[in-house]
Amino acid sequence: MQNRHMIVDLLHIPLEKLESLPVTVVAGWVRSKRSAKRCSFMSLSDGSCHRTLQCVIDAEPKWDAILEKIHSGTAITVTGKLVPSPARGQTLELIVKDLVIVGEVGEDYPLQKKSHSLEFLREIAHLRPRTQTFSAIFRLRHALSLATHEFFSQEGFFYVHTPLMTQSDGEGAGDIFQVTSLDLEDHKVDYSEDFFHTKAYLNVTGQLEAEFLAHGLGKVYTFGPTFRAENSNTRHHLAEFWMIEPEMAFADLRDCIDLAHKHFTYLIRYGLEKFPDEMDFFIHSHKHTTLEALHGFATQDAPTTITYKEALKLLKTHAARFSVPVPVFGEDLSKEHEVFLAETYFKAPVFVTDYPKDIKAFYMRSNDDGETVACMDFFVPRGGELMGGSQREERYDYLKVAMDKLSLGEDLSWYLDLRRHGSVPHSGYGMGLERMLMYLTGIENIRDTIPAPRTPGGIRF
Amino acid sequence: MQNRHMIVDLLHIPLEKLESLPVTVVAGWVRSKRSAKRCSFMSLSDGSCHRTLQCVIDAEPKWDAILEKIHSGTAITVTGKLVPSPARGQTLELIVKDLVIVGEVGEDYPLQKKSHSLEFLREIAHLRPRTQTFSAIFRLRHALSLATHEFFSQEGFFYVHTPLMTQSDGEGAGDIFQVTSLDLEDHKVDYSEDFFHTKAYLNVTGQLEAEFLAHGLGKVYTFGPTFRAENSNTRHHLAEFWMIEPEMAFADLRDCIDLAHKHFTYLIRYGLEKFPDEMDFFIHSHKHTTLEALHGFATQDAPTTITYKEALKLLKTHAARFSVPVPVFGEDLSKEHEVFLAETYFKAPVFVTDYPKDIKAFYMRSNDDGETVACMDFFVPRGGELMGGSQREERYDYLKVAMDKLSLGEDLSWYLDLRRHGSVPHSGYGMGLERMLMYLTGIENIRDTIPAPRTPGGIRF
Repeated sequence: MQNRHMIVDLLHIPLEKLESLPVTVVAGWVRSKRSAKRCSFMSLSDGSCHRTLQCVIDAEPKWDAILEKIHSGTAITVTGKLVPSPARGQTLELIVKDLVIVGEVGEDYPLQKKSHSLEFLREIAHLRPRTQTFSAIFRLRHALSLATHEFFSQEGFFYVHTPLMTQSDGEGAGDIFQVTSLDLEDHKVDYSEDFFHTKAYLNVTGQLEAEFLAHGLGKVYTFGPTFRAENSNTRHHLAEFWMIEPEMAFADLRDCIDLAHKHFTYLIRYGLEKFPDEMDFFIHSHKHTTLEALHGFATQDAPTTITYKEALKLLKTHAARFSVPVPVFGEDLSKEHEVFLAETYFKAPVFVTDYPKDIKAFYMRSNDDGETVACMDFFVPRGGELMGGSQREERYDYLKVAMDKLSLGEDLSWYLDLRRHGSVPHSGYGMGLERMLMYLTGIENIRDTIPAPRTPGGIRF
Repeated sequence: MQNRHMIVDLLHIPLEKLESLPVTVVAGWVRSKRSAKRCSFMSLSDGSCHRTLQCVIDAEPKWDAILEKIHSGTAITVTGKLVPSPARGQTLELIVKDLVIVGEVGEDYPLQKKSHSLEFLREIAHLRPRTQTFSAIFRLRHALSLATHEFFSQEGFFYVHTPLMTQSDGEGAGDIFQVTSLDLEDHKVDYSEDFFHTKAYLNVTGQLEAEFLAHGLGKVYTFGPTFRAENSNTRHHLAEFWMIEPEMAFADLRDCIDLAHKHFTYLIRYGLEKFPDEMDFFIHSHKHTTLEALHGFATQDAPTTITYKEALKLLKTHAARFSVPVPVFGEDLSKEHEVFLAETYFKAPVFVTDYPKDIKAFYMRSNDDGETVACMDFFVPRGGELMGGSQREERYDYLKVAMDKLSLGEDLSWYLDLRRHGSVPHSGYGMGLERMLMYLTGIENIRDTIPAPRTPGGIRF
């Protein structure tokens, strides 16, 4: 529709310019309709923004038949005159001159004016983008994605696409999906006949390939889907989610933390500046944070950091308040401890660094103490872990020992090879897009942060 | 490294400002080294741009030992003074005061100064980003990706993430990958035990899900990996590639073509403006197009379009020049005909519209003639098909008949459901990122457009 206006544009027109506007054409879906004595009101959404456009229809008999067919969800186009609105909460409204129904809704349309539970909406994932809540979530998801590209581009990073299908079984990171072109009903499995002539999996990270790209392009980041076949039905897990993984050559753990902190604050500022209505909506509905708190974190100059060992000491002095024992060196922090650090103690997002080697991934760089690695986890108030990263082991001998221990030699010989030729200190981290979205919106179930969530048994849409 | 300068920034410093610059620190990899009587020269790349920085080292004995260890590929940091360069082809160079070797190369380092064939480099995909050609390809890949996000954002589209794992077997589009968490060596396949409790596949398109999102958000696009298990070892096919798929509500085929044309020209302009060195490099090496031709297409006001029926007529008048018969109504155009239209006849990218229903996908909207559908294919000179799109069938009755024919009812009931509630005319298209990159760079094998190509038997990196 060439002559159509988007509601987001109309709502930004200064009131003094309304008079001179020619006729306005809008197309969208009715969110709600109500009739008063002298006129009917419809709030119309076209998806372009959080706010709806109020359409006012004079109570004339010619509209009766058409209004009767209009319900929540009906698609219409309206033509009319934009005027300042006398109503509260909106600056302008559209006086309807013409109205055409484009698509009616069936009698069994499940989205009614009343608000529905998120659980119910999950069952109709193909319709939930039409609701106020989910369109706001998905616009913020867009915002965080775009902001990520904008941020890394400004920082001189190149966006790279690392492969999804891989022959590496994911550093033994747990359950992963297998990919095959074999006919499984055939009852014999011969991988020499399979598409890749070998067993293949869905990748759990793009980091290893990002490393080889960083050794040519300098600073790169991946942003793509990532997979886990963990059979856990929790509100924190998806089988398919989107991850952002920057990787920098000539960079140590400090550089990595600085970048992660800058990225995190950039995303918050972008959301607040570019999508204030959506942010207000979630902060108002979920009270999970305040505008002041977000502004505070977003303008924090330097990251708050603490080493794992310092964290243990600190937790020990507060041991009485925890329901689980404070870990001793070599044990991981429990969720309760992580939340305490960010939410209660620092009252701010916090990086915990230099964990014991034995509980971290093989590629992390050994510190000089011989027992810890140059890594970081990033915790946010209420949200728990949002990012994890490290300086990578760039020394051939160290990495070889670590890989041999896990028998990773064969499939990943190219990875070790990077340390034989022009090896440089390098580092990077991973941020789960959905976790960041949960943090910003206060949405508590990760299934509500992605259009078509994939979970055990969940693949319908 | 906090005090490090990126070469891309240094090369943009105006000559008159060099004098006042303090000492400069650069880190990167040596591309080449040569020694003359009075000094040695190294060209250094840090990946940040196509051009290298010439580093000049006085012939002093103190450098001898260190210079001996430096070869193509050695990682170094250099500190020195930037000065105007007397040499041709560069405006400035770095007079080295200090030099540290960060990572040496092994004696068997396969990338030597001499240029290597693309076939050879494919065998060392983990090292090829260090070459001039591949770093340029991957920077342009980044450019097209960023430009796509920028373009759609400016046009009011929201970036959405559609699922990769799906239960739909891809409209019978051909061979697809199956995804499973079953232990295949177990010799019994019981899908009730599989992760999704049913057979699951890797998606061949995000369009169907993008449609449900467009019905809430109005204008959306996906940009993500897409999979085909076609066992074809050609220079045009990958098992995993990246696709861009916009979808608009309240839009017909004309809107779709206008958007596609605008997107295409935006990408060309972005490449030429933001990465001129890379574009010059490929146009100079491959002579596949000219700057003038690209500028011409990029500023073309309106798209060139022709219907399938018109195309048949036109081809018939040139029948003598083809090695294969001109198709009759109901048959697809062959590659030769497509190339003729774009390259020889129109000498410009061209949209061919309204193909016969029977050779197109089930979701395309039936035209009033009952025998064609509202679709388009987009062909570029030399490159063949770059995009394909259509207006989608928004009428419940029409779509139901088409889906019943293919027995698509069960898994895709939600897709049909979109036509029962608030259905609107909508349209979209798909563009393969790799195809666009091939068009711009003249690279002839699609395996050279992506960091880790996936092909039959090809999954090493």
